[in-house]
Amino acid sequence: MALIVHKYGGTSMGSTERIKNVAKRVAKWHDAGHQIVVVPSAMSGETNRLLGLAKELNAQPDPRELDMIASTGEQVSVGLLALALQAIGKQAVSYAGWQVAIKTDSAHTKARIASIDDAKVKADLDAGKVVIITGFQGVDEKGNITTLGRGGSDTSAVAVAAALQAKECLIYTDVDGVYTTDPRVVTEARRLNTVTFEEMLEMASLGSKVLQIRSVEFAGNYRMPTRVLSSLTDPLMPLEEEATSGTLISFEEDTNMEQATITGIAFNRDEAKITVLCVPDRPGIAYQILGPVADANIEVDMIIQNQSVEGKTDFTFTVPRNEYAKAMQVLEGSVKEHIGATSIVGDSKVSKVSVVGVGMRSHVGIASQMFRTLSEEGINIQMISTSEIKISVLIDEKYMELAVRALHKAFELESA
Amino acid sequence: MALIVHKYGGTSMGSTERIKNVAKRVAKWHDAGHQIVVVPSAMSGETNRLLGLAKELNAQPDPRELDMIASTGEQVSVGLLALALQAIGKQAVSYAGWQVAIKTDSAHTKARIASIDDAKVKADLDAGKVVIITGFQGVDEKGNITTLGRGGSDTSAVAVAAALQAKECLIYTDVDGVYTTDPRVVTEARRLNTVTFEEMLEMASLGSKVLQIRSVEFAGNYRMPTRVLSSLTDPLMPLEEEATSGTLISFEEDTNMEQATITGIAFNRDEAKITVLCVPDRPGIAYQILGPVADANIEVDMIIQNQSVEGKTDFTFTVPRNEYAKAMQVLEGSVKEHIGATSIVGDSKVSKVSVVGVGMRSHVGIASQMFRTLSEEGINIQMISTSEIKISVLIDEKYMELAVRALHKAFELESA
Repeated sequence: MALIVHKYGGTSMGSTERIKNVAKRVAKWHDAGHQIVVVPSAMSGETNRLLGLAKELNAQPDPRELDMIASTGEQVSVGLLALALQAIGKQAVSYAGWQVAIKTDSAHTKARIASIDDAKVKADLDAGKVVIITGFQGVDEKGNITTLGRGGSDTSAVAVAAALQAKECLIYTDVDGVYTTDPRVVTEARRLNTVTFEEMLEMASLGSKVLQIRSVEFAGNYRMPTRVLSSLTDPLMPLEEEATSGTLISFEEDTNMEQATITGIAFNRDEAKITVLCVPDRPGIAYQILGPVADANIEVDMIIQNQSVEGKTDFTFTVPRNEYAKAMQVLEGSVKEHIGATSIVGDSKVSKVSVVGVGMRSHVGIASQMFRTLSEEGINIQMISTSEIKISVLIDEKYMELAVRALHKAFELESA
Repeated sequence: MALIVHKYGGTSMGSTERIKNVAKRVAKWHDAGHQIVVVPSAMSGETNRLLGLAKELNAQPDPRELDMIASTGEQVSVGLLALALQAIGKQAVSYAGWQVAIKTDSAHTKARIASIDDAKVKADLDAGKVVIITGFQGVDEKGNITTLGRGGSDTSAVAVAAALQAKECLIYTDVDGVYTTDPRVVTEARRLNTVTFEEMLEMASLGSKVLQIRSVEFAGNYRMPTRVLSSLTDPLMPLEEEATSGTLISFEEDTNMEQATITGIAFNRDEAKITVLCVPDRPGIAYQILGPVADANIEVDMIIQNQSVEGKTDFTFTVPRNEYAKAMQVLEGSVKEHIGATSIVGDSKVSKVSVVGVGMRSHVGIASQMFRTLSEEGINIQMISTSEIKISVLIDEKYMELAVRALHKAFELESA
């Protein structure tokens, strides 16, 4: 018997029929003697419907009012799930974020959780109730409703699990775990039984969008064992089987013997690169280039500046493809002349492919194996960037699938 | 310049286009220098949609969870209206019931307001903001969300107006005021410029469903001048004209010279009557009959018990027609034998027609005028019941329209 947190996404909560299935699954865990806290998302489509209404009324909506509106989607979900559980004989009680004091900062639409008061929840659990808490939302110091940003229900679930010192946080979703790479690109892709927190961070940020990245950070900060598993299985499947399915994000490096060298191949198709040519190599130049880009709210991913030659250097970075035009405009508009660059060149049809794995730390030769594999396929590497547990390369987007498949094979990821 | 509370119903909030019209109307009042608090209902259809989902999951839903779910409809409305006001240049802020501490008891789905903390609202108003507060909902002592029952937004608006000591509470609705009787029955029905609180109570409870009866009680308790007016007029019509339109529920009897004798003809088509024959005339008999009926949650309207003859009496009461079968079942099931009644008879096709007016207090002859009129039309009176300001009769439902028209004419209500 343990305290377990379940999180269900919008698809799992998408209709009353599906909500009944969630209730059955939760009841099964409760019947087995566990204390269960559930954090469901809004019914699929609901948040978009609400934000759509808001946009019709105001093109630049006040974030505080957006939170007021959007937070209702999760409130409906928790009430409905409580009713579904009660209908099958379980005691259940629902809470909005403010009712169990999920305190956040005041950054409306992207607030961060500061604290959770667990007294009420513990008392309900001890009384034998299933407790259902809204994801995605909290309340700031002044009593305003805040939301955590899209996908924030994952973060809420992990935060609640950490506050309650749960044994495990189960994230039920429409994929059945984390794979060595995207199965749609490589059919031989294999589901990982465990990944380390650091690997998951790299996988998530590199485009394997199984979990919201902040929820992984949260799990890491609190060392909360978090499992990603399928919500599409039979809700009455044997609990022992379900409890070991999916992929566990683990914080015990020693037990993670499965991955000898690398864990998976991550990729991001929609990148664009921009190079500022012949900029003077002096302190502050990177800030002078990227400051205005950041001010325009454009996310920057890879950044590379090579050794300078004769006091001049080339400065390259990547941005999401849909921000490319805006970024070029910002640079051409004011930055170029200001820093004295000769010209700015870009390419909006590049993709990033990364090899990820904690095993990489102690193994030489991963990089050379990666570069040889790409070379054998005739794929030119445009940029390279490395961290302790990953190596990323930027390539022409038309070779992306080919590169992922070749690397998956070269590192023998199809077999455990 | 004054503090005014506006209340808008679900139809007025039914689409983003209509919400924009509400915003224009509110802005007009604010532009004229008034402090404005708005209490909007959920968008029409929304509360039914939410309760429908709940019913699909649980045939006997927990009232606490129903409130959790249903209260979201109003929360969406306040946020959307704030955005619509901001879009036309007004400062506006929205609050859920718990955020401005609309404290209620814990009677979920039909809670009663205990207190409102006005500090936050006053500060916002003084800062020049339009304040928008959810109708229909509050929070109990333990921090649970409560709702006031269907139509509760009217009550919220009047309660907020009373707490803020507003000058007037304007209830915008899809009718343009209170009429001498239903214009669908009598085309000559005339809109009243003012009605007294007592008359309005009788009109509302007798089936002129312009306002929720509890909101009228609230207005009475706090002597809050409350005006019913149309939300279907041009939102930009001159403010002076709008401010005197509709019907004002007044608390100044002396100024109410308009109604010399009677104010209007109210009616309720869907009644059913039940008579328990030959019951012993002893203390406690009324309770023994009506106690089990009340326990079955059946509303009782008229109650008549006449002088007893030889220690026996007949006891008659009316119930809503759709509760008739249930009420008969309750009486036949246990009550009849227990009290020693000879038999129970009933008629589910009766209607109630009432003549209402504070002027009646000081005028003899109203009753005889009423009975003569009905007699001249050949309408048999089955039951009579009177209060200080109304006389009600129960008649065969097929004569209801005829009775209303004849009485409207007899009391010359078509002309002021």
